[in-house]
Amino acid sequence: MSGQIEKVEVLVCSPGRNYVSVKITSSDGVVGWGDATLNGRELAVAAYIRDHLASTLIGRPADRIEDTWQYLYRGAYWRRGPVTMTAIGAIDIALWDLNAKALGVPVHRLLGGATRNRILAYTHATGWDLPALIDSVDATREAGYRAIRAQFGVPGLETVYGVSQSAAYEPAGRGARPAEELWDTHAYLRHAPKVLSALREHVGPDLHLLHDAHHRLDPTQAARLARSLEEVDLFWLEDLIPAENQELLRSVRAATVTPLAIGEVFTSIWDCRILLAERLIDFIRMAVSHGGGISHLRTVLNYAAVHQVKAGPHGPSDISPIAMAASLHLGLASPNVAIQEYMGHPAETAEVFSPGYTFTDGYLHPGDAPGLGVEVDETAAARFEYEGAYLPTARTLDGGVTDW
Amino acid sequence: MSGQIEKVEVLVCSPGRNYVSVKITSSDGVVGWGDATLNGRELAVAAYIRDHLASTLIGRPADRIEDTWQYLYRGAYWRRGPVTMTAIGAIDIALWDLNAKALGVPVHRLLGGATRNRILAYTHATGWDLPALIDSVDATREAGYRAIRAQFGVPGLETVYGVSQSAAYEPAGRGARPAEELWDTHAYLRHAPKVLSALREHVGPDLHLLHDAHHRLDPTQAARLARSLEEVDLFWLEDLIPAENQELLRSVRAATVTPLAIGEVFTSIWDCRILLAERLIDFIRMAVSHGGGISHLRTVLNYAAVHQVKAGPHGPSDISPIAMAASLHLGLASPNVAIQEYMGHPAETAEVFSPGYTFTDGYLHPGDAPGLGVEVDETAAARFEYEGAYLPTARTLDGGVTDW
Amino acid sequence: MSGQIEKVEVLVCSPGRNYVSVKITSSDGVVGWGDATLNGRELAVAAYIRDHLASTLIGRPADRIEDTWQYLYRGAYWRRGPVTMTAIGAIDIALWDLNAKALGVPVHRLLGGATRNRILAYTHATGWDLPALIDSVDATREAGYRAIRAQFGVPGLETVYGVSQSAAYEPAGRGARPAEELWDTHAYLRHAPKVLSALREHVGPDLHLLHDAHHRLDPTQAARLARSLEEVDLFWLEDLIPAENQELLRSVRAATVTPLAIGEVFTSIWDCRILLAERLIDFIRMAVSHGGGISHLRTVLNYAAVHQVKAGPHGPSDISPIAMAASLHLGLASPNVAIQEYMGHPAETAEVFSPGYTFTDGYLHPGDAPGLGVEVDETAAARFEYEGAYLPTARTLDGGVTDW
Amino acid sequence: MSGQIEKVEVLVCSPGRNYVSVKITSSDGVVGWGDATLNGRELAVAAYIRDHLASTLIGRPADRIEDTWQYLYRGAYWRRGPVTMTAIGAIDIALWDLNAKALGVPVHRLLGGATRNRILAYTHATGWDLPALIDSVDATREAGYRAIRAQFGVPGLETVYGVSQSAAYEPAGRGARPAEELWDTHAYLRHAPKVLSALREHVGPDLHLLHDAHHRLDPTQAARLARSLEEVDLFWLEDLIPAENQELLRSVRAATVTPLAIGEVFTSIWDCRILLAERLIDFIRMAVSHGGGISHLRTVLNYAAVHQVKAGPHGPSDISPIAMAASLHLGLASPNVAIQEYMGHPAETAEVFSPGYTFTDGYLHPGDAPGLGVEVDETAAARFEYEGAYLPTARTLDGGVTDW
Repeated sequence: MSGQIEKVEVLVCSPGRNYVSVKITSSDGVVGWGDATLNGRELAVAAYIRDHLASTLIGRPADRIEDTWQYLYRGAYWRRGPVTMTAIGAIDIALWDLNAKALGVPVHRLLGGATRNRILAYTHATGWDLPALIDSVDATREAGYRAIRAQFGVPGLETVYGVSQSAAYEPAGRGARPAEELWDTHAYLRHAPKVLSALREHVGPDLHLLHDAHHRLDPTQAARLARSLEEVDLFWLEDLIPAENQELLRSVRAATVTPLAIGEVFTSIWDCRILLAERLIDFIRMAVSHGGGISHLRTVLNYAAVHQVKAGPHGPSDISPIAMAASLHLGLASPNVAIQEYMGHPAETAEVFSPGYTFTDGYLHPGDAPGLGVEVDETAAARFEYEGAYLPTARTLDGGVTDW
Repeated sequence: MSGQIEKVEVLVCSPGRNYVSVKITSSDGVVGWGDATLNGRELAVAAYIRDHLASTLIGRPADRIEDTWQYLYRGAYWRRGPVTMTAIGAIDIALWDLNAKALGVPVHRLLGGATRNRILAYTHATGWDLPALIDSVDATREAGYRAIRAQFGVPGLETVYGVSQSAAYEPAGRGARPAEELWDTHAYLRHAPKVLSALREHVGPDLHLLHDAHHRLDPTQAARLARSLEEVDLFWLEDLIPAENQELLRSVRAATVTPLAIGEVFTSIWDCRILLAERLIDFIRMAVSHGGGISHLRTVLNYAAVHQVKAGPHGPSDISPIAMAASLHLGLASPNVAIQEYMGHPAETAEVFSPGYTFTDGYLHPGDAPGLGVEVDETAAARFEYEGAYLPTARTLDGGVTDW
Repeated sequence: MSGQIEKVEVLVCSPGRNYVSVKITSSDGVVGWGDATLNGRELAVAAYIRDHLASTLIGRPADRIEDTWQYLYRGAYWRRGPVTMTAIGAIDIALWDLNAKALGVPVHRLLGGATRNRILAYTHATGWDLPALIDSVDATREAGYRAIRAQFGVPGLETVYGVSQSAAYEPAGRGARPAEELWDTHAYLRHAPKVLSALREHVGPDLHLLHDAHHRLDPTQAARLARSLEEVDLFWLEDLIPAENQELLRSVRAATVTPLAIGEVFTSIWDCRILLAERLIDFIRMAVSHGGGISHLRTVLNYAAVHQVKAGPHGPSDISPIAMAASLHLGLASPNVAIQEYMGHPAETAEVFSPGYTFTDGYLHPGDAPGLGVEVDETAAARFEYEGAYLPTARTLDGGVTDW
Repeated sequence: MSGQIEKVEVLVCSPGRNYVSVKITSSDGVVGWGDATLNGRELAVAAYIRDHLASTLIGRPADRIEDTWQYLYRGAYWRRGPVTMTAIGAIDIALWDLNAKALGVPVHRLLGGATRNRILAYTHATGWDLPALIDSVDATREAGYRAIRAQFGVPGLETVYGVSQSAAYEPAGRGARPAEELWDTHAYLRHAPKVLSALREHVGPDLHLLHDAHHRLDPTQAARLARSLEEVDLFWLEDLIPAENQELLRSVRAATVTPLAIGEVFTSIWDCRILLAERLIDFIRMAVSHGGGISHLRTVLNYAAVHQVKAGPHGPSDISPIAMAASLHLGLASPNVAIQEYMGHPAETAEVFSPGYTFTDGYLHPGDAPGLGVEVDETAAARFEYEGAYLPTARTLDGGVTDW
């Protein structure tokens, strides 16, 4: 076995963007890394682990991964939620890494082994207007992608989620407070079908196109949009509505045959159980790091499979290389993981994290190095100090807070 | 108006037990206090507020309480959960306090005014065996209580939630890790009806008796226990099962007419919407501090009222005097708050927090001082440094983690 | 505190049209005004308040708004209905006005503060035929409106709800009995899509268009109309069917993605609970005056928000300036009030009621004067004596009574 | 035919208690009487009819009863509720009376004829303690009743609905405001089963016993009480909970086989449609006067019959002799009217109203005189001037408003 947990350390660094990592060292010297990054709330998770969990883990058998998960989940008394589940997820991922390293095998080997040779990836293309979007999609396709999420501007608005009027798009901004965007769902609904239809016309029928509405619609607007996009043949239409009230998806589902994806803000099966049990969505998008780690996301994936729901995990740049590796190992071992979001990371990120996964010909593979296969350079990390950053917020034209 | 938010400070202290308080100061010098104490996870909430929320609040109009709530709730992107909702709740409570002080009225005046003259209180009686329990109940009744929660030991077990074999019961223990208790549901189920029946026999029919099963049963066991206690005429039977899966209460509800209470671990309406809409419980027990503050708990209470669900908010000693005051102000203004848990606080707590609420003849009243009516002595607080403490965890006889 | 209720007076006047107002004076001389106007049944509400409620309120604490609401609602024994709920609503509105004045703040400040900077308004455009309708819409747009409800004539009929063949449209007619209109749903269903499509073509995609079917369809006709108008992209389609049987909306909802609005004839949450809980509508339209006042409508709005239903309150000219002000204060404080109907009042109305709300650039704001911000000139009111008036009734071509 | 409506007059008098009567005279001199009494809100209904309905009826064909009903119901625009439905009901009853008189037949003859020979009656027995209750029941049985509603005091309370510590019970008290009673559901629940069991023991198995909980329980308490009374073999258990939320009866129904009755506060089918369609009750208790008259209550009865729900209409002393006669005519003609509440009237009432119905051997019969068979002495009525009176209100021990 791999001994007992001897040290639990939290590493906060910012190589291009903020990351929180957890390092667990066992009594026989094996090290496991987990990811605890919660975009815009990083230090709350860091405190949760460092100040409240770390000491409770010392001395526990390092190979009791599931027992530790239960201990942390039930032991919190107040359960669920992004901070709690990300903290638990980081420990869980680190223990899987540690155990696989102790056995000298890749993590997917411990999860039942690979169920596929590679995982379809999708990434983001973005252009404020149609020509720019087409350029971006073409470049992305050129880079080998077979599935592309297309986001675009809306006439009359100055900012829109997922797209920038200038340079590269990075939603989280450094500083003391979030940017505040102005949003108008009606303008978006009038515009989106035109852009996406034109884009489909341009790319032809084969390329997988995805689109993200980013929780900004109500169920009726969602139904209208999904129905109006049926001819575009989307791979999926994502995050149509805020989904705390899962039953609201019923009317959307009944109105359209466009495939639906939700879940990047979910953090446990309780956020999506009804969505899965009634198959109100086609794809669950929970991230392994925010969703309680490999152990819990596997539970979610298995439950989803019973209802023929597939998965397409969250994967923007705030999913660190550690979390991305974990997602790929779990994905390779899970029959119903259909696709993986993959946005890459800032250049500086590679100075700290050296992942073993690879992108080839539109597909990802986690690699076969022991554990997750991610090397972490702690010395390099020390050069990149944490600096607060926030995802934007949004207001409607009358000044009310709306969902960003 | 009460100006803009000028300062948001977090005060962590430990007068007898750990508390996290939030102090908001407006540009015209009015101060509001909120409570951010999350038992055993205090510093994660403190970091959430200090490192992520505080700077975003500076300069906002202090009288836009609901707008600030929406801004914090939607602005988090990852929503819900105890850390997030406690942080938001603390800001919300502080703003209600601040606004009521600015207007020179008690908080309940801003919530539509008092709907009753006083709020029925219940507290805890505890005895390892029946004689000890009867002594404790008698003493509690002597102290004026008309409603008493009775907890007791189980033969063959060494520790049981809510009761101590020695001195006073305090679940949260200082140190580097939680205590680990051994638990046997079968032994409890065989024992509980006997104790509670004997207790009812002793106290006669008039005293309100409550009992807490503390999430340790499965739905069938819950149904058995609830049915076996029908003759005891409990005011309520609490926390029968872990309730992340709300629909599991359906079978319990169908099996018994014993009144059911759940909710001290809930942190938003999404944790209990089905329980309320299907009236699977009689009492919702969410705490104002953990449940997003006065603004959100009021939404929950109003929703509950439509379905004839009453409330009996959480109130052990980790509900600080600030949160207890907020609970009482909201309770006085809410027609369906039937009862308030009231456990009191350690003696040292009074050196820091001077609340204006009173306990008389079995009932509580929040007082009529401006705001929440709680004075905070920050100098005194500095004398009581934070020291980590944990609620216990539990294992079954075979060594598996179970719900504490 | 604001003392006790000392006087409750009912003011009936008719400056351009009939209004019933309630004036509550507290023992320390603060005055609050409420609106009790129920179009065509004014004197029944006046009698309800003057003869049955007024004496029961004297001496009650003026700051116990919610308690007074419960007292009046439960104390009636026979509950609900327009007369009862309008009477209670008037008292409730007056108490909020009185309390806010006593504290020197606008009512919205007591409701949690502004959640937006302004409220989108819509008003009525009307033309018997398409050219006249287009003229009306253009003029209305010229006046600054961004959202317009369009009503029009139907070939073969002489009168149609919401439109006049001559001058300005005013449904309520003075005299001893209602006008009786002839109605043919089939003719309307054949005509409406053509007019509305042509109108959309004329105004372009940006203007918000609304339309009101005024309860005249059955569910199948409703589904047909709503589906046939999907391309028109309505902001909402209103009052498709009489909705006493709420479940009848299910089939309408399932058939279309046109946004649906109902509720101007509802007077309590019991008239719409199923519509909200199953999200069978997108917008609830209950008026603050007919719906039990600010206290009860707030409960409805909060319940609606849990199910992502927005509000767009009723606001024709029989919603007096007092009720309009109350609607705007509540709307500014409620995150899910999306739009407010605003039809203005006859010129003479301004001689009695001087409201503080403003219309600018298509949006409304309640103003920041203490209370509701409406001055009432009782001397002027005495010049305008009540004169009975009736909303029309309708019959089908075969002579049967139908819904007007 | 019976000509046109020529006069609609409202008679308010108080022979022992307040009554509002409507007198319709046709152009050929036939007179019909209806009842518009709404206990405690009489003058609002009087105003509704006199000021808003009367003029609209003049000149209408007197024989178009259903058309007039539709005209008044749909013409109100704001529908439903006690004031509106009582006003419509009074017109409707008067027209049935007028038409039957014009044809020289009893009203039941126009309703399809008698479906039974007589209608089982029940009345009230009342005693503060068991001996007094037994005396009252015995006396009532002696008077010929075969079905008796038993109400009794509760130890620790000073007032209880339906029973007086002294003399005769009359809930509505004259004066400027309602009496305020103190209520404790827990005390009632502990006491009621003991009293009713003892009473059953005393009367033997044959006598029909009824009991009324008067809306004071929540659904769980209701289920407990109903289940605990199963051995008492009640004819029915009445008004367990406030029933605006009809679905709340589901859990009560599932918990017990005690027959349930509800409905004296209902005023249209929309208040009970779900109760009937799901057969959540055994008896619907709507009064003909409050429920829109003979025309509408017949609709309710027919719908109820489809679901094997029977009726037992409301009949305390505020149901005037006119309304009682209407109830008996409709009851005789309706196969599913099982029983009629019959409390009698104060002695003075007989000076104004001379009904033709009879009570014999525990049964009622409406008589066979033309119309309803009730003579009204308007000269005598003038001697009894209206004087305001109120049903009591209730508060719980903590001072909150509760259901009386």
